[in-house]
This record gives sequence, C-alpha cells and structure tokens, in this order.
Amino acid sequence: MSTTNEASPLASWNDGGAKSQILDFVARVTEQGSPDFVPPAERIATFDNDGTLWCEQPMQTQVFFLIDRTKELAGRDPTLRERQPFKALLELDFKTLMGLGKQAIFELVFATHSGMREEEFDPIARNWLAKARHPKFGRLFKECTYRPQLELLSLLRRNGFKIYIVTGGGIDFVRACSEEVYDIPREQVVGSSQKLRFDVNEGLGGVMKLAELNTFNDRESKPQNIALHVGRRPILAFGNSDGDLAMLRYTKTGKGRRLALLLHHDDAEREVAYDREFRLSPLNEALEKADYYGITVVSMKRDWDVIF
Amino acid sequence: MSTTNEASPLASWNDGGAKSQILDFVARVTEQGSPDFVPPAERIATFDNDGTLWCEQPMQTQVFFLIDRTKELAGRDPTLRERQPFKALLELDFKTLMGLGKQAIFELVFATHSGMREEEFDPIARNWLAKARHPKFGRLFKECTYRPQLELLSLLRRNGFKIYIVTGGGIDFVRACSEEVYDIPREQVVGSSQKLRFDVNEGLGGVMKLAELNTFNDRESKPQNIALHVGRRPILAFGNSDGDLAMLRYTKTGKGRRLALLLHHDDAEREVAYDREFRLSPLNEALEKADYYGITVVSMKRDWDVIF
Repeated sequence: MSTTNEASPLASWNDGGAKSQILDFVARVTEQGSPDFVPPAERIATFDNDGTLWCEQPMQTQVFFLIDRTKELAGRDPTLRERQPFKALLELDFKTLMGLGKQAIFELVFATHSGMREEEFDPIARNWLAKARHPKFGRLFKECTYRPQLELLSLLRRNGFKIYIVTGGGIDFVRACSEEVYDIPREQVVGSSQKLRFDVNEGLGGVMKLAELNTFNDRESKPQNIALHVGRRPILAFGNSDGDLAMLRYTKTGKGRRLALLLHHDDAEREVAYDREFRLSPLNEALEKADYYGITVVSMKRDWDVIF
Repeated sequence: MSTTNEASPLASWNDGGAKSQILDFVARVTEQGSPDFVPPAERIATFDNDGTLWCEQPMQTQVFFLIDRTKELAGRDPTLRERQPFKALLELDFKTLMGLGKQAIFELVFATHSGMREEEFDPIARNWLAKARHPKFGRLFKECTYRPQLELLSLLRRNGFKIYIVTGGGIDFVRACSEEVYDIPREQVVGSSQKLRFDVNEGLGGVMKLAELNTFNDRESKPQNIALHVGRRPILAFGNSDGDLAMLRYTKTGKGRRLALLLHHDDAEREVAYDREFRLSPLNEALEKADYYGITVVSMKRDWDVIF
C-alpha cells in the first residue's frame, strides 16, 4: 500500500472500526503476491455523491439549484407562478409537490435542465455552484464535502484505484464540479440523465438535452449503469441510503475480496442525524440488513474525527 | 509533441498528406503556449472500430461470431434450423436475412448475446476471439488490425490523449478484446448495447443482459453516446462510413482546432476496395462532402505504406 505524500492516511478518521477495515482492504488488494491482489486496471471504486461525499441536508444541492433556476424562469414567464408544479416549488410547498408525484418532479427538471446544448448547461451549473451557499453552514455548497471522504478518495487514488461517482443527481450537474471538488474527471461521473439529440444547425453540431428521461440513476439502475459505463464490477463502493443498496450488493457479491461501505448520519451535533424518515432519500433496509449483506456501517459520530 | 519511445512516429504511414496533418495537429494541441494548446484532460480521441481499426470485410467480425454462436444454439435446439431468422443466417442466405428487416437482426443478436450475466458473456467472446480466423487473410480476426492505426493510437497515447472506441458493434463484444488488441481499457469502449437488469439470486448479485435494445450506436447515436459516457467533445475522431459522419461533424464543429479523419478503403490489392456498395455499412455522403465538412480523407492506397 502506498502512503506517499501522506504520512498518516485517513487522518480525519478515528482509529479502529471502519478505518481499520479500509486500510486493511487497500493493503490486501494492492500488495503484490497477496492472495487478494487486484491488478490496477480492475481497482474500480464507486461513490454515491449526495449524503456520501457531500451534505444532502436539508435537501440535495441540486434541489436548491432547481429552485433558483425556476425562479429565473418565472422572472421571464410569470405565469409559472400560478402553474403546478412550478407554483408549489416556488412557494417551497413540498407537501403539495410530493403529492403531485414523480412526473411533476421530472417536469421541473426538464423545464430547468433541457432545451439547450450540453455545453450551454455546463456554465449555468458552474456559475451557480460558484456562488450558492448552504443555508445552515454558510459556506458554498461545493465546500460542504466531508473531509474524511476527500482523504479516502486521495488514499484510493494513490493506490491505483479509478474512482467513479455514481449519483442519483443529474450527470451534467455533477460533472460541472467533479473535477474541481473531487479531482474526478467528468467521464468518471455516472448519473441520472435525459435523452440527448445530436443536431447540426448552421454548421454548429451539438448535443441537445431533451425533455425526456434517459435514466434515473437510483437503486437497481446504479449497478446497471456501472455495467454500461464501466463494464467492470467495483471492488469498493460507498453509499448512504437504500438507493445505494443495489450498488453495494453488486460490489459485495463479486468474486474475491470486496468492501461495501454505508455512511450513517448519526451526528446531530456536528451535522444532521437522519435515516429512515428522510423522504428524499431514506435509509432503511440497507442499515437493517447491513450485517447480513456484509456491508460495513460507517458512523459519522464514532468513525469521523472531523466532518468538514 | 512527445515522440518518446519511437524515433519515427507513424512509420507505416507515407509522408505528406494525411500523415502531415496528423503530426501537425498533435504538435499544435500539445505544445505549451501554442494558441491551439489543449489541456491533457480534454484531449479526447474517438475511433470507430469495424473498418477503421480492424478489417470489416467480407463482414464485420461480430457477424462471424453471431453465425458461430447460432450454430452452437442450433446444435442444442435443431428446430432453429427451420425457423427464421435463424434459418437464413445458418444457410448464409443474406438476401433473405436483409429482407426480414432490422428486427430480425436484433432477434439474432438477442438470442446469442442475452439471457446471461455480463460476466458470463465475456469469456464466451474471449474464447471465440482466441481461435476464430479471418476467411481470406488466414490470421486471427483480432490480428486483422491495421498497423498504421496501432501506431496512431500509440502516438496519441504518448501525447496524453484519452482514446475511446465508439463502435456500432456490441459494447461487451468489443470490450472483450479492447485491452489485448488496442491497449484501450474496457471503460473506454462505447458501443451498441442491450438493456440490463440487476438481480440477486441466491446471494449472487449480477447484471443480466436482456433481450431488449438499449442503444444502436450508429449515426446520431455516436455523438449522443459520447456525450453520455464521456461528457466531452472529442478533438480528434476517425471513422470510415456514413455511420461515423455525425461523430466526425460533432468533433469538427467544436471550438478550437479539431481533426476529423475518414478512412477510404481504396486498395483492392492489399485489402478490399469498397465504399457506397457495402450494404452493411456504406460510405457515401461522408466521402462526397468530406471537403465541405473539413474532413480529411485517408486513402489506404496512398497514405499507408503497410496495412497489416
């Protein structure tokens, strides 16, 4: 195991428990001649984003983006203020919004994320991310990443892992910050996406984002999209909700040594304590059956010395 | 431009013409301070496979695989010999087969490529590729790669390019040989694919290949799938048929210096001379309008000193 550039890897993790398991795993799969050795090309690690790499409370970052984008649209077209689902979102009336169902959410996403070229969306997301701040922590959303996780990404990279973000969030939204925030190249982001259409107008060839769902990258779609994009089964995966359970089981049921990790937000003092009651992304089955599935539960309270 | 490890890059290319354009392009985009400099992370190159990197005549390699797989299936279920589209394929009656339409081709593909886990398909393809030989050239299909192209891949890699294969062929089929044949990692293959389904049976989590089309990676689907998988517009693309035209135009219409290359099979003596009459993958519009679209035509006869 290489610890180059860092005398003490995972410095923000408390000793014992999850930290030991991670260090042990990385040592075993990287040590030449170890029975668990994995060639560098096959060292694939997949991380969920919201709630795993950065904060997802009180709502996922992209929901704040969605609200701000909808306000902008309503500035240009005030009739949106009286039309559902825009009205409910603009009034932050989430009860009504949830009652309108999944299709209403997609409608909001399409209205704010489509009808433009991919290369036009990118600067919109970047400009927003450059300024938008978390309502509770006061810092930029993109700075609400967990320090222990940045250390883990760095440890894995130094040990030859190729790291993918596998997120329920929009692929283009996360790509707009993955390099700056996590040092993960755009092409190593797998996420929810809309259908695309290549067209050529006046000599400008481009790919348009359409108002039609391609994939909602949650639950079973996570392993399916990993198979499509990567074509290799991860040897390490990290999630924090039932939406990540299929990815964790896909990882854990592969041959050879594997590590599946589940972050439990149990630190009300330093962050937010929540699991099954968080409607936007509940943690229930994955936590209950973690032992049975061989998933390592990481407690923010117990395992992390520092959070941000 | 780095020419490390090779005193004479593109040794199998004849001087002048296409070779000069390639060397000039690579020099311009890699030279620090050049107005055309492109940071390494954005040096994306995309290559079609059949007819661009390896031989596609008299039929694409995967069609031979399809026939051999169908023979195997017919060995187990002889009724296939009397049922279309299997009958026509087994009798090599391509006229009837083409008359049965696209859906019949998909049926053949699904019968031979689905109903199994991705990790079960991989060794089937590898075992076939380890033995199957080209009917005319006598060597293994996987050795029917073009030497000038292998030199080009190597030159690009040495200069920091990340190379993707963007093929109309099956993503899992090409992934089964991309590392061995081209030194291109599996995850850098974008191809046609079937829908996938993650399931867990008796503790074995896996991704099943279903008998349903996900994407036929041809024409407009090529840029669309590049946008999905890579999220960056290529700065160099290489194809050989009208199926690659959208990818070439996507590349060429991006901002900054770009290079789009089209291989013309015009060497009947050393390979096969064909273009618009090749029904499985015709070259017509791309050749006719190459000049207008700023696409560089590479003549096998004129530009390549050696083919295999």
